[in-house]
Amino acid sequence: MTRIERIMPQNISPEIDRLIKLLSKLPGLGPRSARRAALELIKKREPLMRPLVTAMAEAADKIEECEICGNIDAANPCHVCGAPARDQSIICVVQDVGDLWAMERAATFKGVYHVLGGTLSAIDGIRPEDLRIASLIDRVKAGGISEVILAMNATVDGQTTAHYITDHLEGQGCTISRLAHGVPVGGELDYLDDGTINAALSSRRPF
Amino acid sequence: MTRIERIMPQNISPEIDRLIKLLSKLPGLGPRSARRAALELIKKREPLMRPLVTAMAEAADKIEECEICGNIDAANPCHVCGAPARDQSIICVVQDVGDLWAMERAATFKGVYHVLGGTLSAIDGIRPEDLRIASLIDRVKAGGISEVILAMNATVDGQTTAHYITDHLEGQGCTISRLAHGVPVGGELDYLDDGTINAALSSRRPF
Repeated sequence: MTRIERIMPQNISPEIDRLIKLLSKLPGLGPRSARRAALELIKKREPLMRPLVTAMAEAADKIEECEICGNIDAANPCHVCGAPARDQSIICVVQDVGDLWAMERAATFKGVYHVLGGTLSAIDGIRPEDLRIASLIDRVKAGGISEVILAMNATVDGQTTAHYITDHLEGQGCTISRLAHGVPVGGELDYLDDGTINAALSSRRPF
Repeated sequence: MTRIERIMPQNISPEIDRLIKLLSKLPGLGPRSARRAALELIKKREPLMRPLVTAMAEAADKIEECEICGNIDAANPCHVCGAPARDQSIICVVQDVGDLWAMERAATFKGVYHVLGGTLSAIDGIRPEDLRIASLIDRVKAGGISEVILAMNATVDGQTTAHYITDHLEGQGCTISRLAHGVPVGGELDYLDDGTINAALSSRRPF
């Protein structure tokens, strides 16, 4: 018995059953919340379910991965790669599209991106060829890149990936940098881990 | 700025934006998890997004409320009301379809249901005419009902609704019962609230 079957009666109609099983595959929705979501969708058929069907079908048809950077957009190349105002010589390498959005929200970076699609991970069996690393190296080798900023998460896997990329970009004549580690703005020392405090201390700047 | 706008960059494509906004209306998905869900859907376009579109469209077209009891099903009357093996003279009144499913999972009740669609609530402004109470009274008045089991949640609103229904079913010649309050099977006294312990004590049974 799967977790879904344990919270569903046997004689439920197959349409509802299928909907709940698919919804429960979304991240953040367990079997129980998928059931609640399905009931809510059926209750709000016209105001929510039908628009969601349309929005999903439209996204499935129109959204694609940018062939240059891996961002997702209705345009290809995406609106970042295609913007004349962006500095094409600075590439910020991020793990996922969500991280690209986080950088864009901060709205100070004026270069372009490269979305890896994850990090190297021995545990999850993710190898360099599973990520968009080869195309990053190709982009840099094609020339015209002055700086590559590695903006992976400050996790073990993120930093392993950063080291791997650095090794493969050496000798290409571009600067390779990474985001600074330190005290988050608004952060309190008492709540920070030792690693962050040590990083902030060793990277201290003149005041 | 809404919560969604705060976690999304300004220049995102409208298809993705719309998808995330609709997903965030599902119960259990906040703006951040709706964003993760949208990214996952776009990443798993063929194995997840397209089947979900189909399943939702199908559910939106086929699933309806049972005209007798308010259960949702592809059949109308639903498979419970339509089953010859079920005892049509015993009606179990539940708040929502999820509660009907919970009763069906337990698989001991052999009567039929009546789904109210919620509870009376002064705070949320839910009045008797917003619930399926009139149709319950009509069902009982039509005759042939020997027992009405009130299986509302053991909350203040649930019990208020139970009292309201009891008042309106008096004199119809059918037994009105409610689920027993007591110690849940497998429950430990030390972790139970005083109300439950008192209810279990006053309803004690010969051993």
